[in-house]
Amino acid sequence: MGELRGACIFGQSGGPTSVINASAAGVIQEALKQDCITAVYGAAHGIKGVLEENFYDMSQEDPYELELLKTTPSSALGSVRYKLKNAEEDETDYKRLLEVFKKYNIRYFFYNGGNDSMDTCNKISKYMQKAGYECRVMGVPKTIDNDLWGTDHCPGYGSAAKYIATSTMEVYHDARVYDKGMVTILEAMGRNAGWLAGAAALASLKGAGPDLIYLPEVVFDLDKFLDEVTTLYKKNNNVLVVVSEGIKDKDGRYISEYGSDLAKSKDAFGHAQLGGLAATLANIVKEKTGAKVRGIEFSLLQRCAAHLGSLTDVNEAYLAGQMAVKYAVEGKTDYMVAFERAEGPEYKCNIKLVNLTDVANTEKKVPREWINAEGNGVTEEFIKYALPLIQGESRPPIEDGLPRFARLKKVPAKK
Amino acid sequence: MGELRGACIFGQSGGPTSVINASAAGVIQEALKQDCITAVYGAAHGIKGVLEENFYDMSQEDPYELELLKTTPSSALGSVRYKLKNAEEDETDYKRLLEVFKKYNIRYFFYNGGNDSMDTCNKISKYMQKAGYECRVMGVPKTIDNDLWGTDHCPGYGSAAKYIATSTMEVYHDARVYDKGMVTILEAMGRNAGWLAGAAALASLKGAGPDLIYLPEVVFDLDKFLDEVTTLYKKNNNVLVVVSEGIKDKDGRYISEYGSDLAKSKDAFGHAQLGGLAATLANIVKEKTGAKVRGIEFSLLQRCAAHLGSLTDVNEAYLAGQMAVKYAVEGKTDYMVAFERAEGPEYKCNIKLVNLTDVANTEKKVPREWINAEGNGVTEEFIKYALPLIQGESRPPIEDGLPRFARLKKVPAKK
Repeated sequence: MGELRGACIFGQSGGPTSVINASAAGVIQEALKQDCITAVYGAAHGIKGVLEENFYDMSQEDPYELELLKTTPSSALGSVRYKLKNAEEDETDYKRLLEVFKKYNIRYFFYNGGNDSMDTCNKISKYMQKAGYECRVMGVPKTIDNDLWGTDHCPGYGSAAKYIATSTMEVYHDARVYDKGMVTILEAMGRNAGWLAGAAALASLKGAGPDLIYLPEVVFDLDKFLDEVTTLYKKNNNVLVVVSEGIKDKDGRYISEYGSDLAKSKDAFGHAQLGGLAATLANIVKEKTGAKVRGIEFSLLQRCAAHLGSLTDVNEAYLAGQMAVKYAVEGKTDYMVAFERAEGPEYKCNIKLVNLTDVANTEKKVPREWINAEGNGVTEEFIKYALPLIQGESRPPIEDGLPRFARLKKVPAKK
Repeated sequence: MGELRGACIFGQSGGPTSVINASAAGVIQEALKQDCITAVYGAAHGIKGVLEENFYDMSQEDPYELELLKTTPSSALGSVRYKLKNAEEDETDYKRLLEVFKKYNIRYFFYNGGNDSMDTCNKISKYMQKAGYECRVMGVPKTIDNDLWGTDHCPGYGSAAKYIATSTMEVYHDARVYDKGMVTILEAMGRNAGWLAGAAALASLKGAGPDLIYLPEVVFDLDKFLDEVTTLYKKNNNVLVVVSEGIKDKDGRYISEYGSDLAKSKDAFGHAQLGGLAATLANIVKEKTGAKVRGIEFSLLQRCAAHLGSLTDVNEAYLAGQMAVKYAVEGKTDYMVAFERAEGPEYKCNIKLVNLTDVANTEKKVPREWINAEGNGVTEEFIKYALPLIQGESRPPIEDGLPRFARLKKVPAKK
């Protein structure tokens, strides 16, 4: 394909991670270098910012602040959960996007997110093709959940896994100081995939891991769980359990709902709002065993702990953003940037491209064979997979004992 | 006083911190150097290990592992919550302690803990004096709560404060990515003193601090709180609140009990078991405002996050342990090691000694004048006090992407 001259726009979407801004740095720094890219825009709150013509001129930012994005958690441009309707049902948003793209001569569209965001990216890509508007559309993967199809792993996962494994080790030490014993229940995120909960098993390499891990890939049986906890409590006096927020019983009911009579609220994608699982299980175990029990939810902390980032993850997140731009400039479109693990004893991941159509809305779960037969832990294969992803230390610069995060000027683009 | 030859025993007591083992390293390494100290014992689970003759010979430990204690969270020897009765009421425990002290020729007793532990230390000191048994008794301060009387601050507080301020910054960034807005409620420990919750205000120095902080020093009024949150939510769309676990209403009732019908359990010191405040307030705010609300409890994470230690804190914790030994060898007894801040623009703390009698069971709260007039934040004075305590980065060595914590052999002392 020949050179395509025009502006680019970049958006962040879905739940933030501690490295989504590293991908932003990759896209923005690379795009600013490319001669054929005439303007680099950052959309405020993802696709919503594009629809509302609310975006920033990234060339106005201080280069040092853009560099700091590599170690700044959360979505610096703002994120969004906004589901585009199918163009066949309702073309309004698409027409508006095309109007905005034409107005600013936007010829490059980069979208950074997880499953739902890749769906958005895919829909836009297909619509622009159909409309005959030349525009190169690339998805940049992001999700701590690690459940995107077509890639070895997702940027965001490694740092969250490192946070969970490290915190599990620390809690392991803290939770067994008394001779009276305790049952501690840690809750990791993960609606449908147990990648994050499984990462706690990395702590076992240092002799400070959980006794039991329950993933959403396996049906959760409360009685079996109580038996397993009670048996271990009687034997060891201390039990450390890790659960995925999304574990469900055989009827498909979230265990987190067991203890809650609160009306369930639904977010825009129709997922039930989860939370409070650790507390729910802690109460059940306490009642059943009489043991001292503590439930701890890693909550937002696990996805924004940039002070404890995986350098491998940060570098890959940056690379994913940078390569999205390079490939688009070379003429590629309608792809998501993905990682493919090279064979061999040393960890190495190569970049590949996967079709957006294949990625959109397909979830990658933990393979059943990476979960032990009892369904209460992960296997050696899981450890081998996850361990390379948490290597290396990424930390923001420190000023006055506290992290120095990026401060963007966010200069609105000229209309 | 002349030289006193004999064994020493060291115990850890109360809730662990991320630096209590640094004090252990200070005591043990210094005691091993002293010629007059003939054996260095570490008590398993504090005073209980002494009573049960369950202690370790610390000279058997690998010096590198002792060095690693400086960056290992929690109580490596095991902790305890055990309240000694007054000797006048029941002498049993004291007689037993004297028996053990005599059997092992224990002439130095070092006890590391907070208010309750200093009470234990004081009682033992006074009993040994009364019994005419020459023994030098020194308390080493420890508590993330920072509520020990007679010292500028307590080892453990600086690192917990650094964790809370850093995590508050990270959550601040994470919790405002959506344009829909959110109320986020962070819960810090602190039963009666608001030092930890107040530390969140340090994040404001980086423009990422809480909007509202509620400390137990001020009576909590639910209606006033809801007004304050609602007003800010309407104005800014995002509100970040920090609460101390121990906030109470005008009738002295814990707010954490509002939402809970669970029977309250009591620990050995008669404190009500707290927890769940963030979730309770989140539910109340959600119902009242309809806003998206998230409650996050720092829970054990705030006291065991050695991966994010304050170097100032770690060094002072070590020094407190080391100086306890040095002073005891010089002839001092019946004191707690304490810190006194030197005048001047640069932060410097000198060691001083305070009488155990004065320290035992006296709580130091946040001065009312360091809390703002509205009772929903802290003043510049508080910031000036706390900021020096979080300076410097202490981190454990990393192996395979994870912390390498100390592994003690725990060789039982010869009976």
